[in-house]
Amino acid sequence: MAKVGVIMGSLSDFETMKEACQVLEDLNIEYEKDIISAHRTPEDLFTYGQEAASRGLSVIIAGAGGAAHLPGMIASITVLPVIGVPVQSKALQGMDSLLSIAQMPGGVPVATMAIGKAGAKNAGLFAASIIGLMDSTVYERLLSYRIELKERVHKMRRELHE
Amino acid sequence: MAKVGVIMGSLSDFETMKEACQVLEDLNIEYEKDIISAHRTPEDLFTYGQEAASRGLSVIIAGAGGAAHLPGMIASITVLPVIGVPVQSKALQGMDSLLSIAQMPGGVPVATMAIGKAGAKNAGLFAASIIGLMDSTVYERLLSYRIELKERVHKMRRELHE
Amino acid sequence: MAKVGVIMGSLSDFETMKEACQVLEDLNIEYEKDIISAHRTPEDLFTYGQEAASRGLSVIIAGAGGAAHLPGMIASITVLPVIGVPVQSKALQGMDSLLSIAQMPGGVPVATMAIGKAGAKNAGLFAASIIGLMDSTVYERLLSYRIELKERVHKMRRELHE
Amino acid sequence: MAKVGVIMGSLSDFETMKEACQVLEDLNIEYEKDIISAHRTPEDLFTYGQEAASRGLSVIIAGAGGAAHLPGMIASITVLPVIGVPVQSKALQGMDSLLSIAQMPGGVPVATMAIGKAGAKNAGLFAASIIGLMDSTVYERLLSYRIELKERVHKMRRELHE
Amino acid sequence: MAKVGVIMGSLSDFETMKEACQVLEDLNIEYEKDIISAHRTPEDLFTYGQEAASRGLSVIIAGAGGAAHLPGMIASITVLPVIGVPVQSKALQGMDSLLSIAQMPGGVPVATMAIGKAGAKNAGLFAASIIGLMDSTVYERLLSYRIELKERVHKMRRELHE
Amino acid sequence: MAKVGVIMGSLSDFETMKEACQVLEDLNIEYEKDIISAHRTPEDLFTYGQEAASRGLSVIIAGAGGAAHLPGMIASITVLPVIGVPVQSKALQGMDSLLSIAQMPGGVPVATMAIGKAGAKNAGLFAASIIGLMDSTVYERLLSYRIELKERVHKMRRELHE
Amino acid sequence: MAKVGVIMGSLSDFETMKEACQVLEDLNIEYEKDIISAHRTPEDLFTYGQEAASRGLSVIIAGAGGAAHLPGMIASITVLPVIGVPVQSKALQGMDSLLSIAQMPGGVPVATMAIGKAGAKNAGLFAASIIGLMDSTVYERLLSYRIELKERVHKMRRELHE
Amino acid sequence: MAKVGVIMGSLSDFETMKEACQVLEDLNIEYEKDIISAHRTPEDLFTYGQEAASRGLSVIIAGAGGAAHLPGMIASITVLPVIGVPVQSKALQGMDSLLSIAQMPGGVPVATMAIGKAGAKNAGLFAASIIGLMDSTVYERLLSYRIELKERVHKMRRELHE
Repeated sequence: MAKVGVIMGSLSDFETMKEACQVLEDLNIEYEKDIISAHRTPEDLFTYGQEAASRGLSVIIAGAGGAAHLPGMIASITVLPVIGVPVQSKALQGMDSLLSIAQMPGGVPVATMAIGKAGAKNAGLFAASIIGLMDSTVYERLLSYRIELKERVHKMRRELHE
Repeated sequence: MAKVGVIMGSLSDFETMKEACQVLEDLNIEYEKDIISAHRTPEDLFTYGQEAASRGLSVIIAGAGGAAHLPGMIASITVLPVIGVPVQSKALQGMDSLLSIAQMPGGVPVATMAIGKAGAKNAGLFAASIIGLMDSTVYERLLSYRIELKERVHKMRRELHE
Repeated sequence: MAKVGVIMGSLSDFETMKEACQVLEDLNIEYEKDIISAHRTPEDLFTYGQEAASRGLSVIIAGAGGAAHLPGMIASITVLPVIGVPVQSKALQGMDSLLSIAQMPGGVPVATMAIGKAGAKNAGLFAASIIGLMDSTVYERLLSYRIELKERVHKMRRELHE
Repeated sequence: MAKVGVIMGSLSDFETMKEACQVLEDLNIEYEKDIISAHRTPEDLFTYGQEAASRGLSVIIAGAGGAAHLPGMIASITVLPVIGVPVQSKALQGMDSLLSIAQMPGGVPVATMAIGKAGAKNAGLFAASIIGLMDSTVYERLLSYRIELKERVHKMRRELHE
Repeated sequence: MAKVGVIMGSLSDFETMKEACQVLEDLNIEYEKDIISAHRTPEDLFTYGQEAASRGLSVIIAGAGGAAHLPGMIASITVLPVIGVPVQSKALQGMDSLLSIAQMPGGVPVATMAIGKAGAKNAGLFAASIIGLMDSTVYERLLSYRIELKERVHKMRRELHE
Repeated sequence: MAKVGVIMGSLSDFETMKEACQVLEDLNIEYEKDIISAHRTPEDLFTYGQEAASRGLSVIIAGAGGAAHLPGMIASITVLPVIGVPVQSKALQGMDSLLSIAQMPGGVPVATMAIGKAGAKNAGLFAASIIGLMDSTVYERLLSYRIELKERVHKMRRELHE
Repeated sequence: MAKVGVIMGSLSDFETMKEACQVLEDLNIEYEKDIISAHRTPEDLFTYGQEAASRGLSVIIAGAGGAAHLPGMIASITVLPVIGVPVQSKALQGMDSLLSIAQMPGGVPVATMAIGKAGAKNAGLFAASIIGLMDSTVYERLLSYRIELKERVHKMRRELHE
Repeated sequence: MAKVGVIMGSLSDFETMKEACQVLEDLNIEYEKDIISAHRTPEDLFTYGQEAASRGLSVIIAGAGGAAHLPGMIASITVLPVIGVPVQSKALQGMDSLLSIAQMPGGVPVATMAIGKAGAKNAGLFAASIIGLMDSTVYERLLSYRIELKERVHKMRRELHE
């Protein structure tokens, strides 16, 4: 079955990236998580990218902050779809992370999500939407998830009116 | 076979979005293109989103500029993967387009590409990477495309040294 | 009598949007409030926009944060005046919300207010200024409100000098 | 009948603001245009604001660039609805104009439009949407205008497919 | 003797503007402080500006935040030197205040200081540097103040080395 | 009589700074102009700052772009009023120049003007407003200048109506 | 042996700059630290720059915030390599510091690091990489440091999997 | 003798990076230039980084635009000093390039220069300043270069006065 690889540059990024993991678990999608630092473990980055497809990964989610090179560099090594999550940085609040991930040159795409936890959650959902193309169970779960979202809004509406 | 839907808010966006179409043609991926304006034809937006899956689309590429709502709104109506291309705007050079597309709330993901033509090209490539998971011919073509990219760099290197 | 519809994308936005409600109450203007999420309940968005005029609404105030599509999308469905409130977002402090609401393309206007609570308050006042054109009592109350504002400044002046 | 006042800080702003005038003419709405500089003719600004209602104006559209104080200052003198158009500035491309107009403090609202010509056009349309509440002919024209917008998109769609 | 007028848009701005007052007191320069809101008390703004010279003011320091129109509008009414202090705003941290004050059109200058307390302090010092041209005692005090600044740095240096 | 020193970092800045010179000439204020580069001629910077007062200068206008250190460094060497003009830079259009000049730390003020030619013109006018405190002829000329500004607006108004 | 000079504009900057000192100590590189304020002690700045080479310094690390002129001005006085650290500022979070340091004109380079503590740490490491060219012991220590970085990532990886 | 490696992501970057080459030639410093694309030739990037020291390079200058990962990734593979040049990008004018290069995490430094040609020129000069520590001829040439800079300013001064 399709499997998602969730990687991040540092353990501190897990606070953000666990949102992606949670969604994948909720949608019952197989995944593995790892810490790969583009700048501190460039060899691991290469190995990870080169072995990703043969190890059975279908989609890679990569989160990083500041000069966030992890998603773009992984995307340069594999042709699997790579989803980038801009982790909120301290000084510039993730604007640096967003631009470092989104502004990839023509030829090597990264699917950029929103800054921070919402982006990490959406990375999980976007991976699921890809897998849903190949796996109708996941597709159905995504449809159910959307119905849940609607119901949560309707519940909030009732709370607002109380 | 998997089919990509390329939509844009205005005919003037085609100058940018044709890069996505070109890549899809080069990679021999079936696609259709259309103009759907989130703000001027909201009913078409709804119909497009609701019928996308049943009409056989697997991936949607949506390009828009300024307060760029097209990618996010399409993503709210379908659970197919939606790729957003921030078209370069006149006053703020696409920073508004980028933020309007990338900063989606948790629950409804849009895969944001770079601002402008590079982003449109990458949208085509990213769609191909998704389809490549289901279609080994496309996957092979993506690998070949990467080799071409390398060769083009090596050719530029030779030009630099001449 | 003219009635204002106050909508927001999430219950958490009410912390901001209640400023609009408070002003409408203070000025004795009839209003209703609701949660409509452009991305999670797009059908509700459509229904709300399509029925707004027939349900007797004259003005719509819509608050949203991040990739804030609610005001612009409601404005695409109705020709009633739509006032947008950029809710302050976590990472980019509302700059994303502001641009997503203000940078509407020619053809579909949204009246954008300031980011956050001041903007929500002003949305209520701006709705009142529209209704004041049709209802001299509201117009008079707005004139009184301005006198109150002046008096509050004069009171602050006295406090400063004490 | 309701009348719109279109003011701008300089003759050079008319290049932008004529879009507002054009829309008002197209929708057959009575309007007058004038040059009022907040910084060079502050007395005229005051007189204009104080006499606006008694002179029969219902809505004021004010365009200005850079440290754009005209919309906010007019709004401080009258309780009529004031619509602000951020004219694109030379160095900062209208980001200064946008923030100077949008970020009004609680108490004195300005309805901010997009930067530049699209914003000027939308200012005219937004004024029409206000007048449409009082004048069903204008309301009908706005509905027709929206149908025209749709038709223009459909026409572009046909051009794209040719 | 030359006198400085320190004005601000709201009592809450005094937290920032008291730095200007403190410097003027420390340098023994006569000053008065007041609350003048460009948007809530536009008539007071006019009166203040028109009477400033005749009431004996030589320099005006004006602090405001957000769409900060107070310094520019005062400068449009008087030809006395006006110093603007961008008060740090909640959402955009004073970037809106800075641009609203600094980006004045050619013809009506405002001397813009840094955002926040440092800017308020410097407004006091800059007023003093103007008065120092006419009053050698103030000029001498400014020279002494600079020596104090140096000594404070030298003291910090000693602390660093301990 | 009071004399203004106009300095700039490079001959290419004169395109901007000549606006300051022109205003000073128009107002019949004595001035001298020079090229002092903070980074290429730091000794000249020091000498200029140290001798400014004794050489009879009353006000210094300094224009620079990019990492614009000239105004702040001159202000650190003299206690004369220093007016800074952010020259529009190539890549960041003067935002770097503006922040490098405006964001001075508490203790050493620089009076920052708008980016580019409008700012240079206003630097000349602001210098005049300072000198006007000591020289009633200059003060009168500034009053006349304001009347001219008004008349130019009134002339534009007539052109608009033709 | 090569010696690094670490300077900063204020004692409060030491909270950031001590990261540079710590790295230099860890790598056993001789250094001295000092407080030199470009704006408050310009003479010390000159003396420091002029004597740096003769006093045996090889590299200078300069940290400053806001209108951060210290690194660029030191670089204008000496031809030794100058490394600039943008200290995180209060209002604009170091964006002003970054631009004031990075945007140096052609002719006088400053090696700019990241905003804040990470930048200060990297300043120490970059100084070491320069010294490592002349001192193989330092070069070896840098290689070891990189191995430590890798090991720390591997340790985090194990923690993530526990 | 010390040798500098100048690399860039694309032939189009040479328009910018030739400024670095020119300075190195003018200062008679041995260098080689090459095109290495982090995203299109990641293996070349690795090889280049790993062999740099053994091939006799002392300093690496890397220029890239947009999501500019080349400088940071080279710096992650070698401990030689790496100087990064943010090439001016189309949409965001190099702000993305600047942040992608400057905001490196603690542990792996890149010496960031200004955006565009001035930055490329300064990269050459900064490399020279490093080599000047080991090679007194280069150090002398840098001192001469500074004298030339001064003379050019003095020449501009004379032109200004003509």
